[in-house]
Amino acid sequence: MSHKTTIKDLASAADVSVTTVSQILNGKGKRFSSETILRVQNLKEKLNYVPNFNARNLILKDAKTIGVVVPNLGNPFFSSFVDGIQGACRDNGYLPFNFSGDNDIQLESYYMEQLIGRGINGLIIASSSITMSIINDIVKKNNIPYLLMDQSPLSDGDQVRTNDLFGGRLIADHLLNNGHRKIAIVMPKNATNNIQLRITGFKEILKERNIDFESNVTVINAPLTKEGGTNAAESVVTSGVTAVFAVNDEMAIGLYRGLKDLGIDIPTQMSVIGYDGTDLSLYMHPKLTTVAQPIRKMGEVATELLINRIDHRNIDRQVVEMPVELMNRFSVASPRKY
Amino acid sequence: MSHKTTIKDLASAADVSVTTVSQILNGKGKRFSSETILRVQNLKEKLNYVPNFNARNLILKDAKTIGVVVPNLGNPFFSSFVDGIQGACRDNGYLPFNFSGDNDIQLESYYMEQLIGRGINGLIIASSSITMSIINDIVKKNNIPYLLMDQSPLSDGDQVRTNDLFGGRLIADHLLNNGHRKIAIVMPKNATNNIQLRITGFKEILKERNIDFESNVTVINAPLTKEGGTNAAESVVTSGVTAVFAVNDEMAIGLYRGLKDLGIDIPTQMSVIGYDGTDLSLYMHPKLTTVAQPIRKMGEVATELLINRIDHRNIDRQVVEMPVELMNRFSVASPRKY
Repeated sequence: MSHKTTIKDLASAADVSVTTVSQILNGKGKRFSSETILRVQNLKEKLNYVPNFNARNLILKDAKTIGVVVPNLGNPFFSSFVDGIQGACRDNGYLPFNFSGDNDIQLESYYMEQLIGRGINGLIIASSSITMSIINDIVKKNNIPYLLMDQSPLSDGDQVRTNDLFGGRLIADHLLNNGHRKIAIVMPKNATNNIQLRITGFKEILKERNIDFESNVTVINAPLTKEGGTNAAESVVTSGVTAVFAVNDEMAIGLYRGLKDLGIDIPTQMSVIGYDGTDLSLYMHPKLTTVAQPIRKMGEVATELLINRIDHRNIDRQVVEMPVELMNRFSVASPRKY
Repeated sequence: MSHKTTIKDLASAADVSVTTVSQILNGKGKRFSSETILRVQNLKEKLNYVPNFNARNLILKDAKTIGVVVPNLGNPFFSSFVDGIQGACRDNGYLPFNFSGDNDIQLESYYMEQLIGRGINGLIIASSSITMSIINDIVKKNNIPYLLMDQSPLSDGDQVRTNDLFGGRLIADHLLNNGHRKIAIVMPKNATNNIQLRITGFKEILKERNIDFESNVTVINAPLTKEGGTNAAESVVTSGVTAVFAVNDEMAIGLYRGLKDLGIDIPTQMSVIGYDGTDLSLYMHPKLTTVAQPIRKMGEVATELLINRIDHRNIDRQVVEMPVELMNRFSVASPRKY
């Protein structure tokens, strides 16, 4: 009755080979049909199959390593974040192993399993796709200390976050003070908590000034990438707004491209405001007005909290909230008077 | 006589504590005076002190991991390169551990020693500061398979490179065909071989067209960063040229910032051409004309060659040269006629 589900049980239930199961669960199942992949994944949940790391779990024991899973190292936000982690690890005699998970649950699970299988001491997870079942099945079952960044939809365990509500307030305040009333917000469809909070802060300011959100603000959905921003440009222009809030700098940089391709001048014809304060925002023309997060410092603090957790397993939950700041530069101006 | 130098011998000779030596050699010696650091480093060479990794060398044995040391993960060139490594590692059941070494010999040595100490199976090194003594003392003495990227000043062991000579020819050809004669080249002072080759190719074309390099081309030295490019802008403008070749895209992006801050329009007042073909070059305005390297593919091939070397220690030297391509976009125009 209490038989623990093995990979053989799972393969047999799914009517595929053990190799097929192994490849699908290791995120290398691209060659299989999506039906097979889904069947194996569903049965994994149903039969409560937990990969067995024990055999290899001691490989890195006491090697002082931590795993870091971010969405994309190519986003300057995450390269600065990882830079902060690298520095703090060095100060503490740790070595960080970082990976781009592309916000792809399969890929993230794969890297977390690989890292845990090699016996890392802890995990920093910045992902908008991570689920509680991954945390429970992969991380907690292996008793690995972990820290979730605020990109995570989960509020569990140790955490580093910034004051997103205040950041959203800063954005709305700045746009309204510059005379904008018709505003677009470019954001992902299923936005994570931290982005939702930016919007909540934004709405608070509008409410305090008696400006109706629904009739003045156009929400345009796009992924958190440069391409996402570029592709949203046309919708922004046709929506008839005078300013656009891109919920991260990457999207804002993409919007610059898209708006310029449409012959729209920033800021005389369209104001653009970003979020993150990546170093790249200073190299855009005009320099991007944005809300800056203390990115490098966030990586340092995340590392220190995680190492503290590794050293003291039973301390209370650690949550650190860091400040944000408006960087008033040149991409926001008053709407043109006709 | 054949007594192997220990860390105690080295500390005693340098008249400092073992902890001090350890911290300096681990790249954590910032708190010590530069005299002390230099004394310890010189004595390390003189006494031929080799750190002893044996005690910890088996930690990761057979864990299928490779170490990757690049100058800066924040440069989109290297984030794409690492992305290629990550993909190829996954296809081969390996896990890559990547680090920014900032072209700082101390830091690079630290990461290589840390990685080797944890028993990685091989190393990919992209660095312009790596020296033969590091390769000999750290890598070869520990019998670690390695692959050098073309940023390296060394031509040793397995290697992935691109056709830099041809790339330099493409640059000169394009600028001359657009009517430019007075040209600036922005490049680092002690340029690595691959960059030297770009200049050699550039010079070949000028020679073939009977244009004297010395009297027509101004070389301006700057580091390979965005800041380097920005700071070089004034020298570019005062040199009286009509076009500037930045030897990587990062510098070109920095040049955009510097030129725009000086009120110089690209390309009507100054043509700019870059090198690398990073995705970011498409988000600059105007889109950057550049020579594209197959960056992601370079990461994939480097990984495949290294894994092949790990599996077959005694095969002949592997060298792969990959093609480059001119991306003719909007940052080069004919010089303005007065």
